[in-house]
Amino acid sequence: MDYNRIRAANDRLMGHKRVTPLLSSPFLDDIAGKRVFVKPECLQHTGSFKYRGAFSAVSALPDETRAKGVIAFSSGNHAQGVALAARQHGISSVIIMPADAPKTKIDNTRALGAEVVLYDREHEDRDEIGARISQERDLTLIKPFDEPEVIAGQGTCGLEIAQQAAELGIKDADVLVCCGGGGLTSGIALALEQDAPNMRVRPVEPEGFDDVCRSLISGQIERNPTTLGSLCDAIVTLSPGQLTFPIMQRLCHAGITVTEEQALHAMQLAHDRLKITIEPGGAVALAAALFYGDQTSSDCVIAVASGGNVDRDMFERALTA
Amino acid sequence: MDYNRIRAANDRLMGHKRVTPLLSSPFLDDIAGKRVFVKPECLQHTGSFKYRGAFSAVSALPDETRAKGVIAFSSGNHAQGVALAARQHGISSVIIMPADAPKTKIDNTRALGAEVVLYDREHEDRDEIGARISQERDLTLIKPFDEPEVIAGQGTCGLEIAQQAAELGIKDADVLVCCGGGGLTSGIALALEQDAPNMRVRPVEPEGFDDVCRSLISGQIERNPTTLGSLCDAIVTLSPGQLTFPIMQRLCHAGITVTEEQALHAMQLAHDRLKITIEPGGAVALAAALFYGDQTSSDCVIAVASGGNVDRDMFERALTA
Repeated sequence: MDYNRIRAANDRLMGHKRVTPLLSSPFLDDIAGKRVFVKPECLQHTGSFKYRGAFSAVSALPDETRAKGVIAFSSGNHAQGVALAARQHGISSVIIMPADAPKTKIDNTRALGAEVVLYDREHEDRDEIGARISQERDLTLIKPFDEPEVIAGQGTCGLEIAQQAAELGIKDADVLVCCGGGGLTSGIALALEQDAPNMRVRPVEPEGFDDVCRSLISGQIERNPTTLGSLCDAIVTLSPGQLTFPIMQRLCHAGITVTEEQALHAMQLAHDRLKITIEPGGAVALAAALFYGDQTSSDCVIAVASGGNVDRDMFERALTA
Repeated sequence: MDYNRIRAANDRLMGHKRVTPLLSSPFLDDIAGKRVFVKPECLQHTGSFKYRGAFSAVSALPDETRAKGVIAFSSGNHAQGVALAARQHGISSVIIMPADAPKTKIDNTRALGAEVVLYDREHEDRDEIGARISQERDLTLIKPFDEPEVIAGQGTCGLEIAQQAAELGIKDADVLVCCGGGGLTSGIALALEQDAPNMRVRPVEPEGFDDVCRSLISGQIERNPTTLGSLCDAIVTLSPGQLTFPIMQRLCHAGITVTEEQALHAMQLAHDRLKITIEPGGAVALAAALFYGDQTSSDCVIAVASGGNVDRDMFERALTA
């Protein structure tokens, strides 16, 4: 897994991915006490960065393998990314989703042409279900994060950050990334290692689901006691990946955790000040940028707003937070 | 007023304006029955396209004149644009705003460093107040739309549309523009006349405040009976301008009117599907794209979402529309 693979993914994604801009607001700068830039991946196709990795992985498959179709398991954002990438390649997709995923995400995944198989998050093992179906139908599994072509696709977000920051004259910044399994974080870290070596990549997680923060401290893969019960469902995974963790260990600086209330508040401020819709899991990096300025070492932070697929009631909760 | 002035404004705005992307969603395409692209000027600095024209006008002033400060009258979006442009040039600004403008807009204008003077929309004449103060303090009036450098600044949005559409392979499209006094509409029309001559610019207005639609039909400047009482406050003006109307008459195709309910519904869909926040006046073009597909002649529409500065209660009303 290296920088060149990210460049190759970027070539395949050209004309497909949306180059999301860097947004800012003087009002957010005032809150943080430093310059804050936001990379709004909520504006990416399917409403999250996951489209990058999904398209990268599907497009990297040999033609004959790809033609048989793909399968993925996901709480929602990876699902939509794979569904759209499959449709754009003219192939079928099966998506295994937890039955308690936000309804918007389930509906959207179906509407993008995928066959959705629901499972019970507490009593069923999604890996087992995925393995069984993919074997039965000879489908290729597109893993959500621990897969080189997925990491490469997410890394294209880092290529854009490096270029856009350079255009703004920013050389030195903390780059805060909403972190689940670490696909986006490790991809961005690999891209910036080459293209913007003075930037520090910092994973951000919700309190109580800080497996990556703890893993970076202990130097080994730590697990969350549960993956249930977080508002930030989009970025809660059991632990960092076998591929992503070593990359993060080598390249990332200390992680930051934020509370759910801070994530909701960041959603509200993103709506008010940047005019974007983000989901709780996609808001933790902005929350860290705004409310933990003391934990970032430069006078400029770039926060990735990783997704915007949020149910109506949760969004209204954020507006009144 | 010609294309070269837009190019010159674009040069001055380079490194200052945000190049907003073109957004799309298969879900919106399904509703419209054609391809829909949205130019989200809500993501522009200060939350609306007005920053472009304001910066263009302020930057075009002779140094000595500019140093004395500027004044503007505005229901809100032009106000914020002028306030920020003035601050970026290190000069003072006075903004005359109606006392019933959305509180967000008044607060933001003050926070951007402007001195805000409120007036009563029904009983006071804003032009008279503006003329008095600007004379007393030797300030330069930055008109909201009927001013060549403002039109040129708004036209930079058209330059971007032409380039971005070309990158997507789109040559033929209806370009729907939320239209108040016609600064944005005429600026875009001038830009596209040169850079994308197969595109048709169509002004969009709220029902009951369709002065431009009627003016284009009658061939002379028509007026609205009132400027009060529309949810789409950002784009309601008494009539098109002396400069903007002849440009629109020469270059624009028939206007389209939408209901307030359709504008609110478009706000909801923009939130759900594009993850952007738009205000009622900034939603009329998207509403026309989605709900009046029969009135656009090509299979592709590009709708400018002109602004996103909306109060919380109005946004919540849109979410439940």
